[in-house]
Amino acid sequence: MAEKNENIRVIIIGGVATGPKAGAVLIRRMPHAYITLFQKEDNISYGTCGLPYFASGDIGTFEELTMTSYGTKRDADFFKNTKGFNVITGAEVVGIDRANKNITVRFLDSGKSANYDYDKLVLAIGACPVQPPFPIVLSPLIRSFTRPDDALHFRKLAERGQINKIIIVGGGFIGCEMAEAAASLWGIDVTLIEKENQLLPYILDPEMSRLIESEFKRKGITLFAGHLVERIELDQDEKPQVALNTGEAISGDYVFLCMGVRPEIALAQRCGLEIGAKGGIVVNDRMQTSDPDIYAGGDCVESKHQLTGKKIYMPMGSLANRHGLIIAENIAGNPVSFPGVLGAFLIKAFDINAGAVGLSENAAISAGFQINTVCGSFVDKPDYYPESKPFTLKMVYDKSDDRLLGLQAVGAGEICRRIDTFSILLQNKARIKDLLDFEHGYAPPYSEAIDSLHHLGSMAHARQKGIHFIKPENVEEKDIIWLDVREEDEVASLPWPGMQKALNHKLMHIPLGNLRNRIKELDSSSNIIIICRRGPRSYQAAVILGQAGFKNVRVIGGGTQAALG
Amino acid sequence: MAEKNENIRVIIIGGVATGPKAGAVLIRRMPHAYITLFQKEDNISYGTCGLPYFASGDIGTFEELTMTSYGTKRDADFFKNTKGFNVITGAEVVGIDRANKNITVRFLDSGKSANYDYDKLVLAIGACPVQPPFPIVLSPLIRSFTRPDDALHFRKLAERGQINKIIIVGGGFIGCEMAEAAASLWGIDVTLIEKENQLLPYILDPEMSRLIESEFKRKGITLFAGHLVERIELDQDEKPQVALNTGEAISGDYVFLCMGVRPEIALAQRCGLEIGAKGGIVVNDRMQTSDPDIYAGGDCVESKHQLTGKKIYMPMGSLANRHGLIIAENIAGNPVSFPGVLGAFLIKAFDINAGAVGLSENAAISAGFQINTVCGSFVDKPDYYPESKPFTLKMVYDKSDDRLLGLQAVGAGEICRRIDTFSILLQNKARIKDLLDFEHGYAPPYSEAIDSLHHLGSMAHARQKGIHFIKPENVEEKDIIWLDVREEDEVASLPWPGMQKALNHKLMHIPLGNLRNRIKELDSSSNIIIICRRGPRSYQAAVILGQAGFKNVRVIGGGTQAALG
Repeated sequence: MAEKNENIRVIIIGGVATGPKAGAVLIRRMPHAYITLFQKEDNISYGTCGLPYFASGDIGTFEELTMTSYGTKRDADFFKNTKGFNVITGAEVVGIDRANKNITVRFLDSGKSANYDYDKLVLAIGACPVQPPFPIVLSPLIRSFTRPDDALHFRKLAERGQINKIIIVGGGFIGCEMAEAAASLWGIDVTLIEKENQLLPYILDPEMSRLIESEFKRKGITLFAGHLVERIELDQDEKPQVALNTGEAISGDYVFLCMGVRPEIALAQRCGLEIGAKGGIVVNDRMQTSDPDIYAGGDCVESKHQLTGKKIYMPMGSLANRHGLIIAENIAGNPVSFPGVLGAFLIKAFDINAGAVGLSENAAISAGFQINTVCGSFVDKPDYYPESKPFTLKMVYDKSDDRLLGLQAVGAGEICRRIDTFSILLQNKARIKDLLDFEHGYAPPYSEAIDSLHHLGSMAHARQKGIHFIKPENVEEKDIIWLDVREEDEVASLPWPGMQKALNHKLMHIPLGNLRNRIKELDSSSNIIIICRRGPRSYQAAVILGQAGFKNVRVIGGGTQAALG
Repeated sequence: MAEKNENIRVIIIGGVATGPKAGAVLIRRMPHAYITLFQKEDNISYGTCGLPYFASGDIGTFEELTMTSYGTKRDADFFKNTKGFNVITGAEVVGIDRANKNITVRFLDSGKSANYDYDKLVLAIGACPVQPPFPIVLSPLIRSFTRPDDALHFRKLAERGQINKIIIVGGGFIGCEMAEAAASLWGIDVTLIEKENQLLPYILDPEMSRLIESEFKRKGITLFAGHLVERIELDQDEKPQVALNTGEAISGDYVFLCMGVRPEIALAQRCGLEIGAKGGIVVNDRMQTSDPDIYAGGDCVESKHQLTGKKIYMPMGSLANRHGLIIAENIAGNPVSFPGVLGAFLIKAFDINAGAVGLSENAAISAGFQINTVCGSFVDKPDYYPESKPFTLKMVYDKSDDRLLGLQAVGAGEICRRIDTFSILLQNKARIKDLLDFEHGYAPPYSEAIDSLHHLGSMAHARQKGIHFIKPENVEEKDIIWLDVREEDEVASLPWPGMQKALNHKLMHIPLGNLRNRIKELDSSSNIIIICRRGPRSYQAAVILGQAGFKNVRVIGGGTQAALG
């Protein structure tokens, strides 16, 4: 039903993204509504996702994060005069009385409290850092990285040269971004500790994550993956010291705890709103909580994954903004639904771009899909064009019906196009055939004539036609011949490392162009794995061997580019 | 019906993209097929689209365009040894006998001819330059730009410094690319002549094209748009001289005729294959000509537009490669269809990226659609992030059912993501709502929190809710107040040019943040047009005025960024 009360009273709790967006849209739809946003901090709206880049110095002043694009500060006056609704800062909402539809606000300056009635309430209360599961001593040099103060404090010390070595606990988004921030601009010696065996666990498969880890190592980051922190204390010089479960103790000038965030739900919980299995406030596709007069959005809610139908917690500024719009439309009586999330993300790691959308191989298997994957290495412009840069893609799809499930992308080359394009494909429940029908924008300064997504579609078809792809780490048999079909000079400049030696494998080198002539050097009953630089030559070689009656031939999909980073 | 003859004889006429791709795929599908590709030139497969960048010197040697990514020349040996089919160069196909299913080949070296039988024939014979409709004298300094020789000849003279001034006739893709090639690397003085009133006519709307023209002017290109060439002769110094219909005569050291290409159809015509209204060989969605044993693809065929269902001629290397795949699959008995074209393209013009997909406003109206458009200006990263760059989008959609019809993009910022993403949206017959549901990849080094396509969707909704957008050139009334809602310093650094003076319009300046307080300075019955830098502030100002009872308020969608370039 459309909302008919033009003088509706709407209270929004929380600034930054969802809250201000909801207020701004709602006042356009319902100019006579009484909208008030309460924010505990002084800053109402700032680019939270920009904090690592302010910490790094890429962004000059914190104020830039609080400004509109035309240099106006987004303060209470801005929201009043430009957007047209009230914002009250320094005001902490301490209670919600759902029966009487009012909230209790405590004003931080005066310490006084007051009640405010609402017809509709919007919870945009965000997230808070996950508490470490190990003991830490209290110190300003050991802190999480979620708030402006965290960035300001670090940057002040970094500017003064007081941080020579930093220890970052947690290899997720913020941990990786802070590793680059500290090392790249401030030249700080960085040690990164992650409890899983890879960076960005849960969202990238291990072999894709390894390409980022290679870049971190190239840039001098010390990485402890698969290491648990046991405690953090201060050493005799009053410096933070991180003790690992292996017995090692690492000292540094500063420790950032980047173990992720969890939904801020205390307020919602106290007033009895439903909390989900992922720890977030439960909302329906109109962003309504279990109380239909209370909406919630942004980092305090959990979402439904579009592909699995399961709940997922995904705190992203881009989703938070879209939540704000959906909430405003629904309060205004426009029944607009949020479609759920696909898990799109991007992250910059020094000179490497990475991103994904949809399900990783591991996530798809956990969700019960019967899947295939293909992995390919590409360049973002033709090889002949200057500044052509490589990247590697891994695609996951349902092997029963060819439906696309996910894409992961890592490399120095342009990957954002691929992630965005694939996101629209997932939104449309696309299949392999849609990749082959994709008409990409083509010109040599921007693209290859055949797009990488088209190639992935062809690779999936090749699988169906009997080409076997394999990941290097899945090669477990003993009696293997590795057939390297690269040219002589390529092999010389990037030799294939000694894996085959370790497993007592045999290594042969026959450039693709000579393979037909030299095929008699190979035994057609051998167990052969073919590798080249990016994959297509191996695929062609597999076709040649297959046509010559070889039965046990497999291909390393993305070649050395995917295997070696 | 699947083809059962494993020893089928397939002849392919023509190299470059479609032919080699068809051969390479087909021999994988049918290892026992007899495949022969005949090519008149010595070079079989090269990046035609790279020729302007070889001419410019961006690409060092012509050989780079003929190489695989691993440095092997794609010559006859390469196709034999690596791909597994025969290629014969220096061999011109002079006739097709459809009744007896054979072709006549003339060998250029010996002058001798021979006949070859086929079961299936593939025409991949490309395009040839459109002949000028005006008289020209024969001179090596007056030539088209379609073949390697054209690029080689120009570059040789440019390297020797023998070209100080070049005249380019035609402002389409190649004309624009060559203008940049000549000016940017060789420092040549460039005059560009286009008979229509804009660059890239037919594919960009005039106001989007103007943003490229502004860049050309900034880079010193002399542009004669809307000028017809009457003749090209040699002046008394034996230099090319171009006479215009205005009476002007322009002399230069070199003339490139870049008036587009047309399908090469002589061979097809002589053997009675159907030629379409757009001048190309007619093919069905399996790429079969009017003779089911003869396939055709690439620049010699005309295509069906996916949105209009009408025929269109679109010579693009990316489509040619896809045609090759479709042809091979169908000959191999796999019934795969080509879905038609969407018209995706990209072009680089100095520091400006441009592209489009789907229908322009003019093309959509010509095709009979009832349309709306929205135009917005954006940045490709948050304003606070270093190297954030602007771009402008124009979207066309069906006003009856919100179906998306086209996107045009121009600017220094990243636009390829938007074109590719929109192409997938068009492929899926998407509507405005799909833009709002789009989950883009977000991180500050790559994107804004709210994607530009999401903003376009919001603008389309705003239109439906009564916000009127207008293009500056469509402001025709006399009695207008232009309301500039930018900040003082923005107005000082980029004053709005004197259009309002010319039409005796009034200009008022009230920064958005002051509008509510100063609204009494405006008369609610006035005819007001609001402008800012990128559009959102004007939209907000229109909401404020609308809520105050103003009835005649319109907004310049993309602000000064779209209007001034």
